[in-house]
Amino acid sequence: MPKVVDHEERRAELAGAVWRLVMREGIDAASIRRVAAEAGWSAGSLRHYFETQSELLRFAMELVVQRVSERVLALGEDAEPRELIHQVLPLDDERRAEMQVWLAFTTQALVDPGLGELRDAAHAALRDLCARAAGEEGAAAESLHALVDGLALHAVVAPAVTTPERQAELLDAYLSGVR
Amino acid sequence: MPKVVDHEERRAELAGAVWRLVMREGIDAASIRRVAAEAGWSAGSLRHYFETQSELLRFAMELVVQRVSERVLALGEDAEPRELIHQVLPLDDERRAEMQVWLAFTTQALVDPGLGELRDAAHAALRDLCARAAGEEGAAAESLHALVDGLALHAVVAPAVTTPERQAELLDAYLSGVR
Repeated sequence: MPKVVDHEERRAELAGAVWRLVMREGIDAASIRRVAAEAGWSAGSLRHYFETQSELLRFAMELVVQRVSERVLALGEDAEPRELIHQVLPLDDERRAEMQVWLAFTTQALVDPGLGELRDAAHAALRDLCARAAGEEGAAAESLHALVDGLALHAVVAPAVTTPERQAELLDAYLSGVR
Repeated sequence: MPKVVDHEERRAELAGAVWRLVMREGIDAASIRRVAAEAGWSAGSLRHYFETQSELLRFAMELVVQRVSERVLALGEDAEPRELIHQVLPLDDERRAEMQVWLAFTTQALVDPGLGELRDAAHAALRDLCARAAGEEGAAAESLHALVDGLALHAVVAPAVTTPERQAELLDAYLSGVR
């Protein structure tokens, strides 16, 4: 019986190599050649899974969205608003890594139209989550969305000040004001 | 009499070329060679002003801070809180360009330690401005800071939704809640 190759697992392994390079050296380090080397693959093998760098970057970006979505879905319909938002905020090392990678992709999307659609979909999804948490669409949801993205940004650029505890406190203060 | 060369004006001209490349193609496009070509200079002439790409990027980043600072200072001591914050928000094309360039520099600073100090100084300066606008340090200033950076980010990634008018409305709503 031939060995069953888990296609998605291999792709996730390569996306992991993209993340590590982006975090260490920035998004331009994530070339096909460098990602293959980081993962311990040949560039030729990598191309069986991703033909272009753009495709590879898009998949690595999708993986951020997928991980956040899975955590949000796992909480179920009756989740507390703050619990939902906590799945996006960089409250632990894993989520801070996601946010740093996401920031690099967001910036890249400004000059790479191939990433724009995914960026827009994620932006809209977080807006919906904020509407659910704020109990309404409109200004309260938009402000919460800006606050959440601002806190996430600050957690990455100033982690010693915008600590996990501080993010949670500031979020709670905002939510207790709007609900 | 020899021609007086305005050193700072030449440097600003090169920084302008950096901004244009960053906005069109991303920060990695802003190599010495490409910036020289964009400005219509030779790489050799450029090196009279900036010896390394890192130096050139830092100067182009400082120019963002300088422009915002000048607008804030011009408002004087008695400025309204909202007027102060308006100098940072992307409320017109010029400020949106500044923010897009700033976002690219902020992301680059995560992997280029040479840009970290300036990023941190700008972060602290905006925190101080937010404390002045919120009327206190602590949670109110930190939340305002997160809201402002979040709005600025949204204005760049979703300009059709987070319009100048909407940014101003959401800021006003927040400020009327804390003052």
